[in-house]
Amino acid sequence: MLHAFQMLCPGCVAHGTPQAEKLHRMFTKSGDVVVIGLHSVFEHHAAMTEVALEAFVHEYRLTLPIAVDRPGEDGPIPQTMRRYGMRGTPTTIVIDRQGVVREHVFGQIDDLALGVIVGSLVTAPTIMSMDCEETAGGCEDTGCRLPETSDR
Amino acid sequence: MLHAFQMLCPGCVAHGTPQAEKLHRMFTKSGDVVVIGLHSVFEHHAAMTEVALEAFVHEYRLTLPIAVDRPGEDGPIPQTMRRYGMRGTPTTIVIDRQGVVREHVFGQIDDLALGVIVGSLVTAPTIMSMDCEETAGGCEDTGCRLPETSDR
Amino acid sequence: MLHAFQMLCPGCVAHGTPQAEKLHRMFTKSGDVVVIGLHSVFEHHAAMTEVALEAFVHEYRLTLPIAVDRPGEDGPIPQTMRRYGMRGTPTTIVIDRQGVVREHVFGQIDDLALGVIVGSLVTAPTIMSMDCEETAGGCEDTGCRLPETSDR
Amino acid sequence: MLHAFQMLCPGCVAHGTPQAEKLHRMFTKSGDVVVIGLHSVFEHHAAMTEVALEAFVHEYRLTLPIAVDRPGEDGPIPQTMRRYGMRGTPTTIVIDRQGVVREHVFGQIDDLALGVIVGSLVTAPTIMSMDCEETAGGCEDTGCRLPETSDR
Repeated sequence: MLHAFQMLCPGCVAHGTPQAEKLHRMFTKSGDVVVIGLHSVFEHHAAMTEVALEAFVHEYRLTLPIAVDRPGEDGPIPQTMRRYGMRGTPTTIVIDRQGVVREHVFGQIDDLALGVIVGSLVTAPTIMSMDCEETAGGCEDTGCRLPETSDR
Repeated sequence: MLHAFQMLCPGCVAHGTPQAEKLHRMFTKSGDVVVIGLHSVFEHHAAMTEVALEAFVHEYRLTLPIAVDRPGEDGPIPQTMRRYGMRGTPTTIVIDRQGVVREHVFGQIDDLALGVIVGSLVTAPTIMSMDCEETAGGCEDTGCRLPETSDR
Repeated sequence: MLHAFQMLCPGCVAHGTPQAEKLHRMFTKSGDVVVIGLHSVFEHHAAMTEVALEAFVHEYRLTLPIAVDRPGEDGPIPQTMRRYGMRGTPTTIVIDRQGVVREHVFGQIDDLALGVIVGSLVTAPTIMSMDCEETAGGCEDTGCRLPETSDR
Repeated sequence: MLHAFQMLCPGCVAHGTPQAEKLHRMFTKSGDVVVIGLHSVFEHHAAMTEVALEAFVHEYRLTLPIAVDRPGEDGPIPQTMRRYGMRGTPTTIVIDRQGVVREHVFGQIDDLALGVIVGSLVTAPTIMSMDCEETAGGCEDTGCRLPETSDR
């Protein structure tokens, strides 16, 4: 999965980049999905330099690999961004094992929808569920537990 | 997918039931995934009656089919809940086309993780992306758009 | 402050009632503000009974005092709801020390706006800030800390 | 109110700066409260330059006035940050009409709590409520409306 972003794009920072990072962490161990960040700056070039990107990556604790898109040869649009025909940032591009682009979305894509798309291209992964801690019966934020004494 | 819940379970109302409803709506047209709600009441039985459930379904505008779990024969735990060995609500159970339980999670499960699990059991669906409306260049909440004049 | 709600009103459960509960907890100790919940049922009366309300209060761990509005004498609108001219639930009514209604809002009211209104009617309270835990320098979700060694 | 931040501080971008901006917009018309942003960079100085700040302000559509803290004379901590004894970013400092610091919080401060503090120092403002649009009866995300035909 290719996640094109700009470090000063609000929709990237609030949604797209954390989503890409989360997917990256889900598949870091198995390697079944590879997530690559692509810093495709098409505006405010003086602000979004490589040293700034390094600080951004450090502060947001990003662990996915991030490439820096090559500057455009005759305009503000960087080269990879143009070749893929992206319309802005964030852009999410899902590529299958044969190298075919299976999805290309500009803007926000819902976690559940992205998960289904990615899942349909891989074999069943180990789940990343957030099961409740084992406590006594009763309701917490995440769920209501059966009483311990219940005969199940 | 089976989504067991109680209408007065905070974790169900805030997360689990909206998630099940969203998955249901994603696959209503294709039918590739069937989502069934299961109202498995194991506490406050006098409060969570069928008439109350009907009001709940109406107010929350739920469209997924919902079954009412049979009361337990010798205790508060309803029968289907016991047979599946559920530990409380919400519980998410993913069953494949051969009828094999592929996932069984108590509590909150992340949208991206659930999507990957479900996706790995179906063929690639039509994406439910929320692409930005076509507007002039600039940043909105969802993303930063390339200027219209750019040579792509 | 009067918080009129219905236990099956999604906007109440997701926003209004947690907000009222939070304000109640902020002023429980000082007593400078009294928050009263008012269960004003105007639809689905058979579902939102007192026993159901008790279960709701228990599951959502509400600690603010809650009154049950008297049923309407000649229609579905309960008596207090009608006397205050409420338009639905949730409704937030702020009353000053002289008994004058200073604010009457139907629907969602922003936390910051409600805080300013309530604050303008009381003397400065003890703050309920969520200060970061004392740790080494660096960024967490809540903020970026100066390095310990810095000469301040 | 003084809002000290850094443009690459995640807790500022996600919470503190939008909160300061919201408070600024609430009082822009009346002028009863003045909100000042203070860009107090104490790390990654090469990344958080003035040109980068300008791009940040543009992309996040900030309208509150923003000052740039003077660089420290013998270390990374800028001068105003040091004089106020701040511990990091974001820092919220509430100053009353007499120039007395009434609140000084490092990290995230809840909207409701900040509103109460600010409100207690001003006269009652015009509310910024988000009342529902006038529609037919029924429940929406924000609330449940009485039926139009009800005799109120």
